[in-house]
Amino acid sequence: MSKLWSESDKLDPAVEAYTVGNDYLTDMKLLPYDLKASAAHAGMLAKIGILSGGEYENIKRALDEIKKLHESGKFVIKPEQEDCHTAIEQYITEKYGESGKKIHTGRSRNDQVLTMLRLYMRDVLNDLGEKLETLSTAFTQAAKKAEGVPMPGYTHMQKAMPSSVSDWLGAYADACNDLTPLVKATYKLVDQSPLGSAAGFGVKGLELDREMTAREMGFARAQQNPIYAGISRGYFESAVLDLGGLIMTLSGRFASDMLLFTTQEFDYFSLPPKYTTGSSIMPNKRNYDIFEVMRGNAKVVEACNLQIKSVTAGLGSGFQRDLQLTKEPFLKGAEVTLTTLDILCQAVPKLQIHEGKLKTAMTADLYATEKAYELVKQGLPFREAYKQVKSELFEEER
Amino acid sequence: MSKLWSESDKLDPAVEAYTVGNDYLTDMKLLPYDLKASAAHAGMLAKIGILSGGEYENIKRALDEIKKLHESGKFVIKPEQEDCHTAIEQYITEKYGESGKKIHTGRSRNDQVLTMLRLYMRDVLNDLGEKLETLSTAFTQAAKKAEGVPMPGYTHMQKAMPSSVSDWLGAYADACNDLTPLVKATYKLVDQSPLGSAAGFGVKGLELDREMTAREMGFARAQQNPIYAGISRGYFESAVLDLGGLIMTLSGRFASDMLLFTTQEFDYFSLPPKYTTGSSIMPNKRNYDIFEVMRGNAKVVEACNLQIKSVTAGLGSGFQRDLQLTKEPFLKGAEVTLTTLDILCQAVPKLQIHEGKLKTAMTADLYATEKAYELVKQGLPFREAYKQVKSELFEEER
Amino acid sequence: MSKLWSESDKLDPAVEAYTVGNDYLTDMKLLPYDLKASAAHAGMLAKIGILSGGEYENIKRALDEIKKLHESGKFVIKPEQEDCHTAIEQYITEKYGESGKKIHTGRSRNDQVLTMLRLYMRDVLNDLGEKLETLSTAFTQAAKKAEGVPMPGYTHMQKAMPSSVSDWLGAYADACNDLTPLVKATYKLVDQSPLGSAAGFGVKGLELDREMTAREMGFARAQQNPIYAGISRGYFESAVLDLGGLIMTLSGRFASDMLLFTTQEFDYFSLPPKYTTGSSIMPNKRNYDIFEVMRGNAKVVEACNLQIKSVTAGLGSGFQRDLQLTKEPFLKGAEVTLTTLDILCQAVPKLQIHEGKLKTAMTADLYATEKAYELVKQGLPFREAYKQVKSELFEEER
Amino acid sequence: MSKLWSESDKLDPAVEAYTVGNDYLTDMKLLPYDLKASAAHAGMLAKIGILSGGEYENIKRALDEIKKLHESGKFVIKPEQEDCHTAIEQYITEKYGESGKKIHTGRSRNDQVLTMLRLYMRDVLNDLGEKLETLSTAFTQAAKKAEGVPMPGYTHMQKAMPSSVSDWLGAYADACNDLTPLVKATYKLVDQSPLGSAAGFGVKGLELDREMTAREMGFARAQQNPIYAGISRGYFESAVLDLGGLIMTLSGRFASDMLLFTTQEFDYFSLPPKYTTGSSIMPNKRNYDIFEVMRGNAKVVEACNLQIKSVTAGLGSGFQRDLQLTKEPFLKGAEVTLTTLDILCQAVPKLQIHEGKLKTAMTADLYATEKAYELVKQGLPFREAYKQVKSELFEEER
Repeated sequence: MSKLWSESDKLDPAVEAYTVGNDYLTDMKLLPYDLKASAAHAGMLAKIGILSGGEYENIKRALDEIKKLHESGKFVIKPEQEDCHTAIEQYITEKYGESGKKIHTGRSRNDQVLTMLRLYMRDVLNDLGEKLETLSTAFTQAAKKAEGVPMPGYTHMQKAMPSSVSDWLGAYADACNDLTPLVKATYKLVDQSPLGSAAGFGVKGLELDREMTAREMGFARAQQNPIYAGISRGYFESAVLDLGGLIMTLSGRFASDMLLFTTQEFDYFSLPPKYTTGSSIMPNKRNYDIFEVMRGNAKVVEACNLQIKSVTAGLGSGFQRDLQLTKEPFLKGAEVTLTTLDILCQAVPKLQIHEGKLKTAMTADLYATEKAYELVKQGLPFREAYKQVKSELFEEER
Repeated sequence: MSKLWSESDKLDPAVEAYTVGNDYLTDMKLLPYDLKASAAHAGMLAKIGILSGGEYENIKRALDEIKKLHESGKFVIKPEQEDCHTAIEQYITEKYGESGKKIHTGRSRNDQVLTMLRLYMRDVLNDLGEKLETLSTAFTQAAKKAEGVPMPGYTHMQKAMPSSVSDWLGAYADACNDLTPLVKATYKLVDQSPLGSAAGFGVKGLELDREMTAREMGFARAQQNPIYAGISRGYFESAVLDLGGLIMTLSGRFASDMLLFTTQEFDYFSLPPKYTTGSSIMPNKRNYDIFEVMRGNAKVVEACNLQIKSVTAGLGSGFQRDLQLTKEPFLKGAEVTLTTLDILCQAVPKLQIHEGKLKTAMTADLYATEKAYELVKQGLPFREAYKQVKSELFEEER
Repeated sequence: MSKLWSESDKLDPAVEAYTVGNDYLTDMKLLPYDLKASAAHAGMLAKIGILSGGEYENIKRALDEIKKLHESGKFVIKPEQEDCHTAIEQYITEKYGESGKKIHTGRSRNDQVLTMLRLYMRDVLNDLGEKLETLSTAFTQAAKKAEGVPMPGYTHMQKAMPSSVSDWLGAYADACNDLTPLVKATYKLVDQSPLGSAAGFGVKGLELDREMTAREMGFARAQQNPIYAGISRGYFESAVLDLGGLIMTLSGRFASDMLLFTTQEFDYFSLPPKYTTGSSIMPNKRNYDIFEVMRGNAKVVEACNLQIKSVTAGLGSGFQRDLQLTKEPFLKGAEVTLTTLDILCQAVPKLQIHEGKLKTAMTADLYATEKAYELVKQGLPFREAYKQVKSELFEEER
Repeated sequence: MSKLWSESDKLDPAVEAYTVGNDYLTDMKLLPYDLKASAAHAGMLAKIGILSGGEYENIKRALDEIKKLHESGKFVIKPEQEDCHTAIEQYITEKYGESGKKIHTGRSRNDQVLTMLRLYMRDVLNDLGEKLETLSTAFTQAAKKAEGVPMPGYTHMQKAMPSSVSDWLGAYADACNDLTPLVKATYKLVDQSPLGSAAGFGVKGLELDREMTAREMGFARAQQNPIYAGISRGYFESAVLDLGGLIMTLSGRFASDMLLFTTQEFDYFSLPPKYTTGSSIMPNKRNYDIFEVMRGNAKVVEACNLQIKSVTAGLGSGFQRDLQLTKEPFLKGAEVTLTTLDILCQAVPKLQIHEGKLKTAMTADLYATEKAYELVKQGLPFREAYKQVKSELFEEER
C-alpha cells in the first residue's frame, strides 16, 4: 500500500513527483495535528461501532508511538507516501494489521488535511495574539524609558516637525494593541471542525458523530455544511495570513525606520553587537541584517498570501488539487510572521538611544510650524502666517 | 493660491502631473467626507477661539454650498488644484476671504486625507456588513427553494459523490454569515479619529480638542498617537480590502461554479435573458458575462490590495508621498467588492434550477463510496471494501 | 442599435454597468488605433467585394471624421455604447446608413480589440526603446560630468567602501542600455496582426485577406492561428509590462537612492526647487515627491502586471470576459512606465552634486578592505589580514 | 571559522536563525556553480600572483573533492555555516590550511552569490529554450495527428463556432515557438560575469583580471560597472522568471482547457491511466491532477516573481540583506517552470482524442455566423443578416 488510492503502482514517476510536491516535507510540521485529529476520529468510530474496543486501543497506541517517534526525530515520511496521512495509516496497518485498514472509514484525505490545518491555524492565532501582546508591552516600556528624549519627525524623508522617541515607539505599541479584536474574530472564524465533511460532500451511509469529534478537538462547533468546509481550504488560510500581512506591514515599517536611523549619517539608535552582523570582505562593517530581513519578510508574507489567494479565487467549489499549493505558503507565511514577532520582542528592549545625537538633530527649521502658530495666535490667518515664516526661512536662497 | 504649499507657481508642469496623479478625479467621490471633517474641524477651531463666530458661520455656509454643488454635479476639482482639499479651501477663500485662510489652522493635508478616508472606510464596512447579510439570506432562501434536488458533487472537476443543490447554495450562505465578526472587528480597528494628528506629529502651540472632533464625526475615540495615525495610512485600507479579498474569493468561486454549471454540456442552471449578454459576431450566443467579470474581479481586488500593501510595507513611519498611490486602488477595491455583492444579491434569487438535468446527472459511479460503506457495515475493513468496489467499477477497462 | 449584439434593450442596467466597466473611458485613448484597424479592414472588404467602392469611400470618410472629432476632444463614447467599437460603428451607420452595417462583416469585437491593442503595444515598445536610449545617454553624461567626485559605497545602508558618483550613475546607464535586446525581442513577439481571427476561430464562409490587412497596418506578419491570437490577449500585454516592470525596478532603485542621498543627514545631491514640492502645514519643507511617487509607481506597475497575469493564467483558451479586465491595468502600467522615463530624462541632467559633502563623507573606515589588501600583498593570507584590520578598527570598543 | 565575517561566536542564535534563512538548503543546488566560479577565481589569483602554484593546485584539488562529495550526496552545508560559500572555504582551509585562507582574496560573498546565480541562470535559460522547442514539436505533431477532427470553439465557456483539434493544439505550438527570441534576448542580458565586482564597488588595491575569469566561465563579457552588477541581483532573476511567467501562463491555459475537456460532461480527450490519480475515499475517481497542479503552478511562479520584484524594487543600489530573499523564489520558480515543460512534453504526445464525442458536439448553433455570411454574400448588410439568423435561432423562446 504505497498510496491510499492506487490500485497498483502504475502512476508515472514524473507525474507522481510533479503532483506530490513537497507535502512529504511540509507535513513533518503538521503531523502532530493529524495525530490529534486521527485520535478523535478513531474514538468516534469506536463509539458508533465501526471499530471494536481492541481496534481502537491499537490505533491509539500506534498514534502515541508515532508521536514519540516524531518528537525524537525518528518518524520519516517517504516521498512515495506523498503525505503524513498515508505514512500514519501505513504505520498502523503494518504494525496492527486490520485496525489500520479501518481508520480511514468515514473520512477522506480532504477533511483530514482540513482538520489538521485547522488545528494548526488555531495554534498560530493563539501564538500571534500572545506575541502581539508581549511586543506591545515591549514597545510601551521602551517608550516609557525614552520619555523626554526629543526626535525629529520626518515626512518625505526630510525633517518636518519636533517629535519624540516615546511617540515613535508608542505608535507601534498602539498598533499592536489594536490588532487584538481582529485576531479574536479570525480565531472565531476558523474555530469549527471540518472533520466529517469527507471529500466535501459529507458521508452518506454511516452515522458519524461530528459534534463528538469537534468537541474532542476543542472546536467551538462543527462546520456543518460539507461544501463550506471544502471552500474553506485556502480561504481560511488566507484570512490568517491577512493578519500576518498587517503584522508584517507594521514590522516592515519599524524595520525601515531602524535601518534609516542606524545609518552612520543619522546614528540615532543602535543595537548591541550580538544583534548585528559583519562582512566577508570588509573588516569595518556592523550591519543591521535583522531589519533588512524583516523588511524583506514583509514581502515574503505578502507573496505567500498572494499565492494562496490566486490559487484559490478562480476555482469552483469542489476540491481541486491546485489547493494543495496553498499549504507550503501558509506554513511559510505563518512561521515568518511568528519568528518576526519573536525577533522584535527580543530586539526592542535592547534598543540603545543616542540621546546626544537626537538632541543635536533638533534644528531650528523643525519649529517653523509652531512659529506660524505664534503668528496665528496674534491674529494672522494661517495662510498668511505660513507665507511669512516660509519667506523668512528661504530668504537666503533667493 | 493654486496649491496649499507653493510659494509661487514655479513647479515644473511635468513634475506636477507626475506627482498629482488622479487625485483630482478620485477625490470627487471622497469630497463629502472631507466636507464633514472640515465642518467638525471648523467647529472645534471656533470653540478654542481660533475662529470667530462669524468666521465659523461663513465656513459652515461655504461647506454647505459646496455640498449642494457637488450633489448636483457642479463642483469641479481642477487638476492644478491637486485634490479636493485645495479646491474646498480655495472656494471658501474666494467667497469668504479671511475665513478661508484660517480653516487649515491646526491641521495638515495628511490628517485631512486620513480623516476623509477613515469616514469613507466606516461607510464601506457598514455597507459590506449589510450586503453580506442580504446575500446570506438570498442564498439561504434559494437553498430552501431547491430542497430535495440532487446534484453531483465534483472533485478535481470529475463526478465524485452525491450532493444537493441545497448544500451547494447553503455553503455560500454559511460563508457569508461567518464573516460578520471580521467585519465588526475591522470596523472597530478603523473607528478612531486621526484628525489633529496633523503631519503625523500632532500640533504643538495650539490647544486642539481632538475628542470633540472625534465625537462630532461619530468616532468611538480619537487615535491618540499621531505617528500611529500616520502609519495607519494604507495599513487600515489594506485591512478593509483584506475583507474585500475574502468576499471576492467566495464570489469568484461561486462565479466559477456558475460558469461551469451553465455550459451547454452541464446545463444545470440558468439565469433569465436579462442577465446574459450576446456576441457582436455570433447570433447564437447567450453568455454569462457577469460571472466572468466577477471571477476576474476577484483578481482585481487582489491586485488593488497588493498595490496598497507593496507601497506601504517598505516605508518608514513618517508620511511619504508613495502613500498617495494607495488611494485609487482602495476606492477601486472597495467599490468592486460592493458592486459584486449587489450583483449577487440580485442574481441569486433569479437562479433557474434545471431539475431534470440534475437528476439525469446522478449516475451510478457517484454511489461507489456508499457501496464501500455497505461492505464496511458488513465487517470488511474500509481499505478492502474500497478495493473491491474499485475493481468492480473498472473491470471492463482491464 | 445601442450595442452590437443586443436584440433589444433588455439587459438589466446593474448587469450592464457591472460588465461594461470603464471601457468607455479607457477606449478614448485607444480609439485612434481602432480607426486605423477599421480602415485596413474596410479596404480589405472592398478588395474582396463585400463593400462596394462607394461604401468603402463612405467608411473611410466617416473614420476620418471621427479621427478629427476625437483629436479636437469632441468624440464621446457613451456608457451605453460600452466601448469605442460600438461608438464608431454607430457613428458610421447613423451618418452613412447601410455602409455602417457592413463594416463589421468578417470580424468580431474580439479581434478588433486585439488589433487595436496590438497597434498600441507597438507604439509603447517603440517609445520605451527610445526613452531608454535617451535616459542612458542622460546617465552617461551626468556620470561624465561627475568624474573624479568620490562617494561612499553603501551596503546594508552602512558605509562600506570607496566608490564614485560616476560609478553610481554609470550603473544605471549600463542597465538601461542592456534592455535594448529585450525591447526588440518583445516587439518581435507582438508584431503580428490578429485581425481576421474574429472570435478566436477565424472566419469560415468569407475569403478574408489577412496578409493584406497585416501589411496595411505595418505588421511583420499575420498571426495565423486564430486560437493563438485569442490566447495572446492579456498574455502579450503581460510580456510588455514585464519590460515595464524591469524598467520600474531600476527607476525605483534610483529613486530610493535619491531619497536617501537628499536627506538633510546625507545631503549628497539636490535638484532645483522646481523639482521639489512643499507642505500644506510646514513652511520649512522641500520634498522630493517625484522620487517617492517613482518608488511607489514601481509597485503600481507590478500590481498592474499582476492583475493581468492573475486574470489570464487560470482561463482556458477561448475568449472569456474576464480578459476585459486586463485592458485598464495595461494602459495604466504602460503609461506610468513611459511617464517615469520622461521624468527621469528630465531630472537626471539637473542633478546637483554636493562635492564638498561627498568628500567629507569619505571617512577612514571605508578603506579597511584596501588596508587588508596591503597586508595580503605583504604575504598575509586574506583571512588573517581581515582579522588584523578588524581588530584594530574595533579596538576601542572592547 | 564558522562564518567568514564573525570575529567570534557571539551572534545571538535567534538573530542568526532569522537572517540565515534557508540558504544552507537552497545552496545545495547551487554549489556546483560556486565550485566552477571559485576555480576560475583561483586560477586568476594564481595568474596575478596572489596564489602560489602550489596553493592553486591545493585549491583546485579541494574543489574537485567537494564536487565528488556533492555528487555522491556526501557534502553537507551546516546551518551554522550559513551558505555554501563558507562551507567550501572551510573545507579547503581545514584540509589545505593557508591556501583556503587566501581563496577569498579579491572577492566578496556578494559577487560570489551573483556569479553562482548567473551561471545557474544561463543553464536555466538554455534548458527553457530547448524544452520549449521540444514542446512546440510535440504540439505540432499532435495537431498533425488530429487533422480533420472537428471541435467546437468556445467563448464565454459557451459553444461559439466550429473549430478543430488541430487549430487548438497548433495555437500552443505557435506560442511556444514565438518565445525563442525572448529567451535569447534574456540570455544575452544575463550573459555577463559579475565576478570581481566584490561587495558592489569593485576591488581597489589588487589588479584582478576580470576578463580572464569571465572568459574562463564562458561569459560573453564582464559586467564592468560593479554597482550595476550589484543592482542585477534580483533584477536579472526577475527577468528570467518573467519568461517563466509567460510559459506558465500558456501552460496554465492549456491545463484549464484539459480540465474542462476531460470532464465527464465534455469528454473530448483523455490521458492513459498512468497520468491520472485516484481518491483515498472514492473508488470511482480518475483525476487529472497534473493539470490542476499545472494550473496552480502558474500562480506559484507568479508569486515567486512577485516576491523577487517586491523585495527588489524598493531598495537603493547597494547590497542589502533583503536581496537574499530572492534566492529561494528564484530557484523555485525556475524549477517549477522547467518541470512543467517536462510534464507537458511527456503528456501532449499521449493525448487521446475522442473523435466520436467531438463530432457529436458539432451542433447546429455553431454554424449561425456562417449562416449570416451566406446572407451577406446575397447582399444583406451584416447587421441585418445577424438579426435575421438570431431571430430564427431564438424563435421558440419568445
